[in-house]
Amino acid sequence: MNYRMIIYLIGKMLGVEGILLLIPCLVSVAYGESQWRIFLLTAGVLLALSLMLSHKKPKNVTIYAREGFVIVALAWLLWSLFGALPFYLSGSIPSYVDAYFETVSGFTTTGSTILSEIESLPKGMNFWRCLTHWVGGMGVLVFVMAIVPLGEKRSMFLMRAEVPGPTCEKLVPKAQSTAKLLYGMYLFFSVLEVFFLLGGGMNLYDAVVHTFSTAGTGGFSNRNASVGYYDSAYIDGVITVFMLLFGINFNLYFFILLKQFKEVFKSEELRVYLGVVAGSIALITVNILHLYETPLKAFRYAAFQVASVITTTGFATADFDLWPEFSKCIFLLLMIVGACAGSTGGGMKVSRIILLFKTIGKEIRQTLHPKSVNIVKLDGKRVPDESIHSVYVYIICYILILAGSVLLVSVDNFDFATTFSSVLTTLNNVGPGINLVGPSQNFHQFSAFSKVVFSFDMLIGRLEILPILMLFAPKTWRKRF
Amino acid sequence: MNYRMIIYLIGKMLGVEGILLLIPCLVSVAYGESQWRIFLLTAGVLLALSLMLSHKKPKNVTIYAREGFVIVALAWLLWSLFGALPFYLSGSIPSYVDAYFETVSGFTTTGSTILSEIESLPKGMNFWRCLTHWVGGMGVLVFVMAIVPLGEKRSMFLMRAEVPGPTCEKLVPKAQSTAKLLYGMYLFFSVLEVFFLLGGGMNLYDAVVHTFSTAGTGGFSNRNASVGYYDSAYIDGVITVFMLLFGINFNLYFFILLKQFKEVFKSEELRVYLGVVAGSIALITVNILHLYETPLKAFRYAAFQVASVITTTGFATADFDLWPEFSKCIFLLLMIVGACAGSTGGGMKVSRIILLFKTIGKEIRQTLHPKSVNIVKLDGKRVPDESIHSVYVYIICYILILAGSVLLVSVDNFDFATTFSSVLTTLNNVGPGINLVGPSQNFHQFSAFSKVVFSFDMLIGRLEILPILMLFAPKTWRKRF
Repeated sequence: MNYRMIIYLIGKMLGVEGILLLIPCLVSVAYGESQWRIFLLTAGVLLALSLMLSHKKPKNVTIYAREGFVIVALAWLLWSLFGALPFYLSGSIPSYVDAYFETVSGFTTTGSTILSEIESLPKGMNFWRCLTHWVGGMGVLVFVMAIVPLGEKRSMFLMRAEVPGPTCEKLVPKAQSTAKLLYGMYLFFSVLEVFFLLGGGMNLYDAVVHTFSTAGTGGFSNRNASVGYYDSAYIDGVITVFMLLFGINFNLYFFILLKQFKEVFKSEELRVYLGVVAGSIALITVNILHLYETPLKAFRYAAFQVASVITTTGFATADFDLWPEFSKCIFLLLMIVGACAGSTGGGMKVSRIILLFKTIGKEIRQTLHPKSVNIVKLDGKRVPDESIHSVYVYIICYILILAGSVLLVSVDNFDFATTFSSVLTTLNNVGPGINLVGPSQNFHQFSAFSKVVFSFDMLIGRLEILPILMLFAPKTWRKRF
Repeated sequence: MNYRMIIYLIGKMLGVEGILLLIPCLVSVAYGESQWRIFLLTAGVLLALSLMLSHKKPKNVTIYAREGFVIVALAWLLWSLFGALPFYLSGSIPSYVDAYFETVSGFTTTGSTILSEIESLPKGMNFWRCLTHWVGGMGVLVFVMAIVPLGEKRSMFLMRAEVPGPTCEKLVPKAQSTAKLLYGMYLFFSVLEVFFLLGGGMNLYDAVVHTFSTAGTGGFSNRNASVGYYDSAYIDGVITVFMLLFGINFNLYFFILLKQFKEVFKSEELRVYLGVVAGSIALITVNILHLYETPLKAFRYAAFQVASVITTTGFATADFDLWPEFSKCIFLLLMIVGACAGSTGGGMKVSRIILLFKTIGKEIRQTLHPKSVNIVKLDGKRVPDESIHSVYVYIICYILILAGSVLLVSVDNFDFATTFSSVLTTLNNVGPGINLVGPSQNFHQFSAFSKVVFSFDMLIGRLEILPILMLFAPKTWRKRF
């Protein structure tokens, strides 16, 4: 284990968070709020720590998969621990556990909140809260790689540990260029959304904040009623479309950039993703028809909520907890499915689900004809056995963590729908669940213990299990090997 | 596909069911009930069908895995379809779908019922209802093999498709001898339980009926309050112990018979099974302490309910739906875990869960040290990769079927805890769930559509997915190959 390199990189990352905190600091100053001092203080602490840890570059800069996992897990834990300080120190969130929950929920783009009253939050604080979504969406390490020339050998191990989905392909040969390219496209779409929202009459602050949340598929808002506050078909429509866009694999946008449209049409994941979205909207529209005046209105609300849940954003324009049980079950399933691999969305990812179904087909063929040769293909290419194997392992870990978390949270003695859906929504980085954690409710009523469990679930969900598991496996820290 | 052989064997099996029906017919006569005619009629129809289908033995008697799966799936479907007739024709259960649900629940040893009032059921009818548990527990095909000399080549394909658990070992070289041996031990334990229950003051009819349900880990009773009716610590204790005994792999009893005690102690599954039982009883006893007068009473009820749920029997002496959420979550998890492989219990089986945990440990080691060689061992023996692979496939099918069924049943618009737990309890062949399907409730309120879904889930759960999946896969019936 290359400890020196781990410390060095962690130092760099804390420094970047320090710089990031200067943005809400400026927002605070601009709105004449007093909390700019707290942002500046936290930034100062982080930059000092960064100088201490990273003042000398180690001689051996090589890192392997093991170091990659540990660095990613530590980076996310520490960013959340320090990122929670402004909320806590300013008194905006009086309990540190709550502030930590809120920050983890931000960086992991979950969007679950412990705040019942959001509109009284200082503008600078809420800006920071939503900014965590934007940075967490594409990945905090990818962000660091994009702006700081780490230039290390094998830094792909970092990216692979952070980018969601069963595979991670470099767009261009160098890892840093890939990171820059990803953030370039991400920024482009974000600016585009701000413009569209301004066009709908939103003010600049609201537009930026909601864009942060849409882009990171997070779900924080500066309005208690979430996007429902604006009650505008135009704004609903814009956000619906952008949520769905941010749920698509960014590699596909790169292909469009290169005018390789064939590659885009070949993507099975994209087709299934759009198919599931369309199917769910259709089923739910029919299921809620009797609750709205016109079919169009039912469609508008169904479309927004489906896009919000499958991309794991978690915005709300309607309280789907009041919809029929069939619709609610679709939402719970969509939470698990999640968005496309390589997007900012959470959940299991559509491509994993596709692989699961294809594997079952293969298994049936294999059992019927034990001697035949059966392979699984995705996008016309053969999927290697190791990829399928790692999908299996992912699913099994996922289920064991889900079951264990439900058991731990059940100690709080809330009803089963609340307990189960609160774990599901945090583990999949969605935001709202059903019943007591429905779209019009929040997480404040849980015990501190459960909030810590949820925080871990959010991190485990965002980093796709292995990094966090590794961090706590004694084997990882053993000297030998 | 050897169609002639499939038809021939199905004919044999229907004949055996016809003979079985003569037992409740005799019980009806003994109690002077009028329904003996209905049993005789159904038996006559089955025997006539059997003669028609099996009058000539086909020349080619070879069957492969494919035929094995199809025969097992068809046998269970048809036994249930015909076994439901007496309930329907006698008017004891006026709707055929309900009668079918009840019979499937019997053969699959689920024990979920649509009857609100059981005590008014004629004695012959309830005898048949509970007898289905006893026969279904060890397997209807194993039963047929034990009493009819099929003597076919490769009849192990039949057994393998029916016996629960990731592996099926022949106790002795010949399949029929294995079947006879299994039923011999099964009968021995059953007779033993009847004696113990008689010793507690139960009458013979009640003792036999409750033994059928315990042995098959089914859960049907002739009392509305289930075993709670007797309110006897002795009877609770006897049934608790026998439920746990019937949840153990019968191979271990065979080892005891051969005085190979070492093999028994080597069994990791047995140790984990007993450990999970002890741990769950301890946690739940503490969790419900405040609900009972003495710790001993809390222990008694916790032990009975835990044994009932993990072995997927489904008897009740207390309404655990009124216990705290933490206890209920433990029960839901125990439902999924289930009993040992090769027992009469349902669920995923303890050995599968052990393999899952071991695999995750292996994966972490593999990721940390990609070049190291890691193998998974069970009972000191290496588990072949195909076995692990088939466990993965099982889990994935299981989850997809669970998710799909929850969605279908949610159309009935019951609350989530009811919908989820009703699917869980049928898919794992347990019996009761929570909320509207809790131990003091039943399944009558669901729509006919949901009851059909539940029936399939029970069959899929009992036959461990593949046979039923095969039966409906178009590929199975394709001529080529």
